[in-house]
Amino acid sequence: MTTVSDLASGTAAWSAALHAEVQQFYAYQMQLLDLAEAQRWAATFTEDATFAVPTLAEPVRGRAGLVAATTRSHAELAAAGQRHRHFMGMLDVRPRPDGAVAVRSYAVVYASEVGGRSRVHRVCVCEDVLVRGGGGELLVSARTVTRDDLA
Amino acid sequence: MTTVSDLASGTAAWSAALHAEVQQFYAYQMQLLDLAEAQRWAATFTEDATFAVPTLAEPVRGRAGLVAATTRSHAELAAAGQRHRHFMGMLDVRPRPDGAVAVRSYAVVYASEVGGRSRVHRVCVCEDVLVRGGGGELLVSARTVTRDDLA
Amino acid sequence: MTTVSDLASGTAAWSAALHAEVQQFYAYQMQLLDLAEAQRWAATFTEDATFAVPTLAEPVRGRAGLVAATTRSHAELAAAGQRHRHFMGMLDVRPRPDGAVAVRSYAVVYASEVGGRSRVHRVCVCEDVLVRGGGGELLVSARTVTRDDLA
Repeated sequence: MTTVSDLASGTAAWSAALHAEVQQFYAYQMQLLDLAEAQRWAATFTEDATFAVPTLAEPVRGRAGLVAATTRSHAELAAAGQRHRHFMGMLDVRPRPDGAVAVRSYAVVYASEVGGRSRVHRVCVCEDVLVRGGGGELLVSARTVTRDDLA
Repeated sequence: MTTVSDLASGTAAWSAALHAEVQQFYAYQMQLLDLAEAQRWAATFTEDATFAVPTLAEPVRGRAGLVAATTRSHAELAAAGQRHRHFMGMLDVRPRPDGAVAVRSYAVVYASEVGGRSRVHRVCVCEDVLVRGGGGELLVSARTVTRDDLA
Repeated sequence: MTTVSDLASGTAAWSAALHAEVQQFYAYQMQLLDLAEAQRWAATFTEDATFAVPTLAEPVRGRAGLVAATTRSHAELAAAGQRHRHFMGMLDVRPRPDGAVAVRSYAVVYASEVGGRSRVHRVCVCEDVLVRGGGGELLVSARTVTRDDLA
């Protein structure tokens, strides 16, 4: 959990270029998720990434687990005639001394019924640790998502 | 239609500066639209721009057509006591070898009833081709909008 | 009130770096607000800042007034079992000749009932004047918020 003292500290290496790169990364990553491109989406996480959500007792670990979880979610959505869009923003980007980048952001999930209406589905806070892959690209090594509708 | 292989390819000329410029461009463009500044809004498209939406059999072509379409929409909204806001984000910015910039983004339209409530009206995906005008400014040359609530 | 001629003029000093810095500033500021960190949030405004909202006859003035207003709002929300998230975007960033930065943006407030549903609460336009504090940091010196659901 990011605390406010974390938020206020350690912005030595913050740069406008990094902020834009993080935005581009999330746009690409979330579009892959919503396109049901599970393998490509999972490849934006490290091999041993953790993904913690409040509805699972244990974090999902590793790319195979991520692929399985998102493939199941998409199948359920399709069966229900629903589409989801993950819209992130308010990216608070904080480089850490170890070279990783902590990002705390808001993520709103919209749901649309095909042939029906669109609405807000979930309002979430997303706390990521981003690291660099072998080609210098950003990857999520740890993600923790909380939901405003849950205690 | 942008495919995932398009998304993953050809980012040679991507820059943080371009990403920020595209964000500023859309903020300006969408605010003009919501302010009902139809002429100024249309001037952010090329003279021969195309604008395809799922509810029209043919794309709107050219600035005069854009002005007519948006003026009609605003009159209908005002008569209904409604306000719309176009909120774009998740900009996946992809420079192309020909110098144009492909941008795939999400656009959420909010509707508010004056004296009533606000709600999500539409959730859309917006695929643009941006080019440079004579003064170096960005202009939309082709826009394709899809809606999550339509098959 | 920003007019369209304001929007179209005076972008001499616009830079991608400034746009990214403004985004980071708002992410930090709004997260503090939603975390109920009233003192730290108020410290992102100048000592004599004004904050005008349509539901108050006079703007709130100064940090003590900001702390009082937001502390009261959070207590009311908590008592009602509600959470709010302030999601800004569409930042039209306009440096002014005097060194201040005018920013016109959209702000959507989401409300979630703990144990219930999430929804759009308000759709707002936010017009800020940003200035530099003693350490070079951005501060809000004047904020005017309008709501789409009010005449």
